[in-house]
Amino acid sequence: MLRLFRPVLFVCGLLAFVIAALLLVPALYSLFCGDGEYRAFFLAACIVTLIGCTLVVPGLNRPFALNARQLYLLTSLSWLMLSFYSALPLILANHPLNLSDAVFEAVSGITTTGSTVLSQLNTLPPSILLWRSMLQWIGGFGVIGMAVSILPFLRVGGMRLFQTESSDWSDKSLPRFHDLARALLSMYCGFTLMCAFCYWLAGMTAFDAINHAMTTVSTGGYATDDSSMGRFNNSILWISVVFMLLGGMPFTLFIRFMAQKRLAALRDQQVYGFLLLVFALVGLLTLQLLLTQERDFFTTLTHVAFNIVSVITTTGYASQDYTMWGVFSVGLFFFVTFIGGCSGSTSGGMKIFRFQLSWLFLRDQMNKLVHPRGTFSIRYNGKTVSDDIMVSAVAFSFLFFLTLTITSLALAATGLDFVTSLTGAATALTNVGPGLGDMIGPAGNFAQVTESAKWILSFAMILGRLELLTVMVLLSPVFWRG
Amino acid sequence: MLRLFRPVLFVCGLLAFVIAALLLVPALYSLFCGDGEYRAFFLAACIVTLIGCTLVVPGLNRPFALNARQLYLLTSLSWLMLSFYSALPLILANHPLNLSDAVFEAVSGITTTGSTVLSQLNTLPPSILLWRSMLQWIGGFGVIGMAVSILPFLRVGGMRLFQTESSDWSDKSLPRFHDLARALLSMYCGFTLMCAFCYWLAGMTAFDAINHAMTTVSTGGYATDDSSMGRFNNSILWISVVFMLLGGMPFTLFIRFMAQKRLAALRDQQVYGFLLLVFALVGLLTLQLLLTQERDFFTTLTHVAFNIVSVITTTGYASQDYTMWGVFSVGLFFFVTFIGGCSGSTSGGMKIFRFQLSWLFLRDQMNKLVHPRGTFSIRYNGKTVSDDIMVSAVAFSFLFFLTLTITSLALAATGLDFVTSLTGAATALTNVGPGLGDMIGPAGNFAQVTESAKWILSFAMILGRLELLTVMVLLSPVFWRG
Repeated sequence: MLRLFRPVLFVCGLLAFVIAALLLVPALYSLFCGDGEYRAFFLAACIVTLIGCTLVVPGLNRPFALNARQLYLLTSLSWLMLSFYSALPLILANHPLNLSDAVFEAVSGITTTGSTVLSQLNTLPPSILLWRSMLQWIGGFGVIGMAVSILPFLRVGGMRLFQTESSDWSDKSLPRFHDLARALLSMYCGFTLMCAFCYWLAGMTAFDAINHAMTTVSTGGYATDDSSMGRFNNSILWISVVFMLLGGMPFTLFIRFMAQKRLAALRDQQVYGFLLLVFALVGLLTLQLLLTQERDFFTTLTHVAFNIVSVITTTGYASQDYTMWGVFSVGLFFFVTFIGGCSGSTSGGMKIFRFQLSWLFLRDQMNKLVHPRGTFSIRYNGKTVSDDIMVSAVAFSFLFFLTLTITSLALAATGLDFVTSLTGAATALTNVGPGLGDMIGPAGNFAQVTESAKWILSFAMILGRLELLTVMVLLSPVFWRG
Repeated sequence: MLRLFRPVLFVCGLLAFVIAALLLVPALYSLFCGDGEYRAFFLAACIVTLIGCTLVVPGLNRPFALNARQLYLLTSLSWLMLSFYSALPLILANHPLNLSDAVFEAVSGITTTGSTVLSQLNTLPPSILLWRSMLQWIGGFGVIGMAVSILPFLRVGGMRLFQTESSDWSDKSLPRFHDLARALLSMYCGFTLMCAFCYWLAGMTAFDAINHAMTTVSTGGYATDDSSMGRFNNSILWISVVFMLLGGMPFTLFIRFMAQKRLAALRDQQVYGFLLLVFALVGLLTLQLLLTQERDFFTTLTHVAFNIVSVITTTGYASQDYTMWGVFSVGLFFFVTFIGGCSGSTSGGMKIFRFQLSWLFLRDQMNKLVHPRGTFSIRYNGKTVSDDIMVSAVAFSFLFFLTLTITSLALAATGLDFVTSLTGAATALTNVGPGLGDMIGPAGNFAQVTESAKWILSFAMILGRLELLTVMVLLSPVFWRG
């Protein structure tokens, strides 16, 4: 058992050092702006460093290699540890959160969900707000890294579709993993800086621009004010739409584009389907609102585009309480919650490629229904999809709804009403942020949710972020017998 | 096109004669009890006979054989025609229903859903009540027949799992289809008579006993009073539990048992999983209610068992408004709505075997996650399940939730609120009956639902009854090009 855990804990220890270093940013900012929270951040950095040392030392000078089981263990454990590291300063702050609130807030940050237990955000110490935004930014990069480096090699919900040979990347190729990681990181930083600059140009303060840029590109959704993005002008909303969409697309695609410098490198069936769906949904809701209510075209289009893109990319900002737009809008936003963005992006949800594969499979079934003796093969992005990947992608929806059922019932058992339980479970598992209903809807927050519900939701956010199966395999006896 | 339709319409014509004959039963009962509705039934019988003649004549003296495409067409068209035939007397009655109400009521009857637009049922003419019960009884037998004779030969949602060789039945075997049909019909009639007799013994009037027996064994759920089964004593509720459970099991199993006269013939993985799930759900909810509320054990157990069995078998009776039992109960009943009974029974829903196959598949995936090089085969009821059947069963859940989404949104677009749209769509697609919320919950009915919503729900009930794909294939261009 120790042999199983030692290299895994070693990596968790290394992550502690990264977080400890990053904790210095809000600490220094606190000193700079004088909000008095620097003690919490320095103390947290020390504790995290200490934990890091404890975990790293036993693994030093030992051969280091991870097998499949250890990869699963590492994936789950690292996100769990990241959440606890990140929660520390919130517990140590001058106005501390209790354990369940701090963990909820940290998990919601690091998984880029964006649900919050905090209110009157504009009165909070700026360094705390900065740390929340940074958590989402860190989490967003973590997800991209995981989607590129680990998930394609695990048999999780059809993710093996994205196993890439180096030849995919360019003629010059990006042969080694750390080259790819470096390229992804610079791309991610580049987008964030561009987004911050645009926000600032369009009228945000520098602080707001940096915070919102970090939570936009990571499709996280934490804001610096209770009104979310409601207090900003239309041009800021449109900038946000663009960068949320970029955050919802596969980052490897942009790298391929940079390497090949040809527009054709951007051709991707997943991105195509994603954008098509966004246009269709925005068009549908705009039309429905214009036809049934007295509204101004451009304002309606702006708010519909902003909120639909926010939910489909699993960001979770709101510019208005869209649950007041009528019953059709409520239903639509509920279902859009499940969709999610592209695989290899920062967004969560069930992911576009799974819907596309399921749809291709259904079409194939239709063909076989009518031509029982015909043989057809399912192609995605120009390659034939093996049966194995097909089934595992399609089975993901079963697993997803099973998890949704259990999570909702667990939430209901803590006393939450039907709509809050159902949409709370959905928004946590898809890492979107807001649910429906008076309590956790886009105009509310998760402060009033019961303590036990906060723990359930925190677990659900991690489950969703890790594509369910990655965590669930740890609960199976087979894994531990293996 | 005419060649495609001629034999299909011929069968629809034959069905018209069956319905015309069955219409004489309420007609004669109307004469007997003097409720004055006999004219409507006789007139409807004449019209249906006329339609039957029109459809049958062009097909007379022609070679008769159905190919795969015609089987699909026949399945959908026959249920559509059955619904219209059955709606006729409701339109022609002394207090006529309008077209959408009559079609809704007839579709809800023939698909054994049990949602109703009628209220103050005890003041309605008895012959109308009898016709409603008969519709469910006819529909129930239609579903069993379809599940045995047609669906296993179509590539629909894994139903090919139930392709049986004649050797499965007995040593003597039931070689020919009409022997099997006759055996099924006598079994079905036998159960109905037994159920009616038990109800009568336990205190129902003869009229109530016959009506409720027909809607119990068919897992339909139409009652003769607005209180559904709420006005009856505990022993009646337990009798109902037994016969609803029987109605939710594969009827071919009982026939195999009668043929082989050995208890081992009843051994079936689907039935085992079904009963286990029922026990678990009843136990869970009883425990939850006893722990959180001041309640009497036996009364609680009775009502929990009755209402859980009613929903899981997709019957839809209610003995109490279970949405008043607390938030956990509301959530649980919502999710139980989706499950459904066994394939080859009268119940609807997603069906137990699909959950079992999905579960087996997940366990298989877990094994492969840990042992990437191992080979495993999935066995169900002692036989290896082919990949093909596996995927199509698993993909059913995707198709189901896609259909649920579209139906809910369509209902929301007619102005129904979120809970009513979502649970209305769910209860129609699974053929259960009641939804949630004040309007369509177990204490309400569908009278106040908008006109267009009634048409959407009617279509959804037929879609659900025919396992979705059977109808959807008709909407694909491939089918008509084929």
